Amino acid sequence: MHGHRLSGDRFSVEYHLTGTELQGRNMAERLCTDQTIEAPLSLLRTCPIPEGLLGRVEDFSRVEETRHLARVSFPIELFGHSFAQMLHTLFGTASLSPQVQVADIQLPTQLPESWPGPRHGISGIRALTDVANRPLVCAVLKPLGLSPEALAELAHSFVLGGVDIIKDDQGLGDHAFCPIEERIQRCLAAIREASRSTGRRCLYFTHVVGSLEAIRTQTQFARQAGADGILLSPGLVGYQALHDLRCDTADALPIMSHPAFLGTYAMAPTQGLAPRVLYGRLPRLAGADITIYPTYGLNFPISRQDCTRIASACTKSWGPLRSIFPTAAGRMGEDRIREMCEVYGRDCVFILGSQIRESPEGIAASCEHFMQRLDKFSAAH
Amino acid sequence: MHGHRLSGDRFSVEYHLTGTELQGRNMAERLCTDQTIEAPLSLLRTCPIPEGLLGRVEDFSRVEETRHLARVSFPIELFGHSFAQMLHTLFGTASLSPQVQVADIQLPTQLPESWPGPRHGISGIRALTDVANRPLVCAVLKPLGLSPEALAELAHSFVLGGVDIIKDDQGLGDHAFCPIEERIQRCLAAIREASRSTGRRCLYFTHVVGSLEAIRTQTQFARQAGADGILLSPGLVGYQALHDLRCDTADALPIMSHPAFLGTYAMAPTQGLAPRVLYGRLPRLAGADITIYPTYGLNFPISRQDCTRIASACTKSWGPLRSIFPTAAGRMGEDRIREMCEVYGRDCVFILGSQIRESPEGIAASCEHFMQRLDKFSAAH
Repeated sequence: MHGHRLSGDRFSVEYHLTGTELQGRNMAERLCTDQTIEAPLSLLRTCPIPEGLLGRVEDFSRVEETRHLARVSFPIELFGHSFAQMLHTLFGTASLSPQVQVADIQLPTQLPESWPGPRHGISGIRALTDVANRPLVCAVLKPLGLSPEALAELAHSFVLGGVDIIKDDQGLGDHAFCPIEERIQRCLAAIREASRSTGRRCLYFTHVVGSLEAIRTQTQFARQAGADGILLSPGLVGYQALHDLRCDTADALPIMSHPAFLGTYAMAPTQGLAPRVLYGRLPRLAGADITIYPTYGLNFPISRQDCTRIASACTKSWGPLRSIFPTAAGRMGEDRIREMCEVYGRDCVFILGSQIRESPEGIAASCEHFMQRLDKFSAAH
Repeated sequence: MHGHRLSGDRFSVEYHLTGTELQGRNMAERLCTDQTIEAPLSLLRTCPIPEGLLGRVEDFSRVEETRHLARVSFPIELFGHSFAQMLHTLFGTASLSPQVQVADIQLPTQLPESWPGPRHGISGIRALTDVANRPLVCAVLKPLGLSPEALAELAHSFVLGGVDIIKDDQGLGDHAFCPIEERIQRCLAAIREASRSTGRRCLYFTHVVGSLEAIRTQTQFARQAGADGILLSPGLVGYQALHDLRCDTADALPIMSHPAFLGTYAMAPTQGLAPRVLYGRLPRLAGADITIYPTYGLNFPISRQDCTRIASACTKSWGPLRSIFPTAAGRMGEDRIREMCEVYGRDCVFILGSQIRESPEGIAASCEHFMQRLDKFSAAH
């Protein structure tokens, strides 16, 4: 024995396991070894490991005829110093198995010191926008392909229309036809000018993408230019990068998480990561302040129940972590305001994409119209 | 018009689309906009974008009754400067759709200058191991939980047994009970000592995990200590990080890619990324020299045909990119040597995991036995 003692503090994962009860129980036992030592228990006869290192089945119950829930706990020491290692414990080897889905995550009593969670959260973002009691509205700069001037002009109209936040589309990178620095500078100038005439603040979130170094450079540039937040796609750059940006010692900008390249994880009902984990738990744990995901009611394989579960994962008390904004996206027109307010209450963000721009009344008037309807409906809820 | 002209060089993606022919054709058209401007074409009436920016359906054909293949080309300028942006063009928004699978990737005539592909490839790794004509054998340091001393002792036995490569298990991070620096130093010392007695070289690949900065620091430490390569899980740290490490100006170590947290992408036959893309094309394009994936014939949802397709994606001519080693992993005992040699020929790597250690004859003898059998079978192919 090399005598290492673990703290005893454990985080736990709820897995949904597909199969008979016996298959489920066997699978739960396998997760205890596969997600830790990844070796058969028989190997441990000659290999002493720290006591308590293995996963432990804490609960096992039937969810449906061929679906069981196993809550398996793991020592937090398995995380080492990185978010990426936590992902490995959560679902590294299990991702290769067709019968396993991560249904939820429960935190240990004590999170690692370097895991502070969201810096701003709902209350921080509300303070920045000075909107206390209704859903926030975020308009999107797109399409990819527009020049920085054209995007700035669009931003100007959005501010006149009274939106709370403007964000880059996640397709906007650092392209020859639209260099990121010029885009940031022009859009911010347009937003400031329009804000002076409305007398209201409108936040701007810049999309950052690439290596950690590139997104740090982009983030610093955005911050120095006066941007209010960043948009980041953990599917493209990793949840670890989201966590790294949150933990930067400088006063980190608010972070909005985008689902690009992630959808596959929540595609099957019996495999991968449940929507509430993928779009709620993980971004919140990594430190996002707003999390975007596809809404129910369109062609995305996500139900109304999934959406309310994501919202709970974002907003309900969860250890020491601040609550964050859920943001169901996709064709969000006036026709869905009432319904969304019923599902989410006040703590959500509406994303205005292409639809708002096809109205004959013009962009600013169209946004203004949307904001008025939102005020009316949210006052009623 | 802001007058930007694109080079005309395009990379193209083969998508498998599920549905009727009409649905398939509509989906193919949607990919042309969803994966680029992510807006309806109607928006472009008032929004001039560079000519040629949209995706273009180059081929459309039926694969099965309800499965169609669309080859869609995109201008390489969409990549901007990052691997992550290429992933977005490939499957960013499409990942949210249940009917789309990336079946293959075709390269543009000219890859971006900063995309050099694998530095070592099969020929480079063969030169390092001095093994010209048979599959290579890689033993794994595990289980997680062992002390650095115990892992070093194991490494010593593997070298005496004659394996070509020793790699860390992907669970090994920087843990209190097994700090990475001590692990690297002790394992390398043990490998050197044993190599002197065998007179043969054995390569050591260190697992690196965490932020890009952390894995750079770990990689530099490993390199200075004398390690021969690194093991990296793009599911945990991102394909972008793999690409970044490959492109480091210092003489980059060989890179072995591991499938942890990636399995979900290749779980469904009609959605996600086909195994040949996930385990072959992407690691090769990002610059891995060896790619590990789960083998067929166990419980993994991967077929023999998938495995041969991965191998083709790794080894067949593909633009300017060196060929790389496919590595089907999972319970690889002597019983599968003949079969694997038939499927893969000589250009593959065998991974020896837990199974080799349960033999009563002891680890070194057991490895030696395996190497002899392999020599015999591969000579016959």
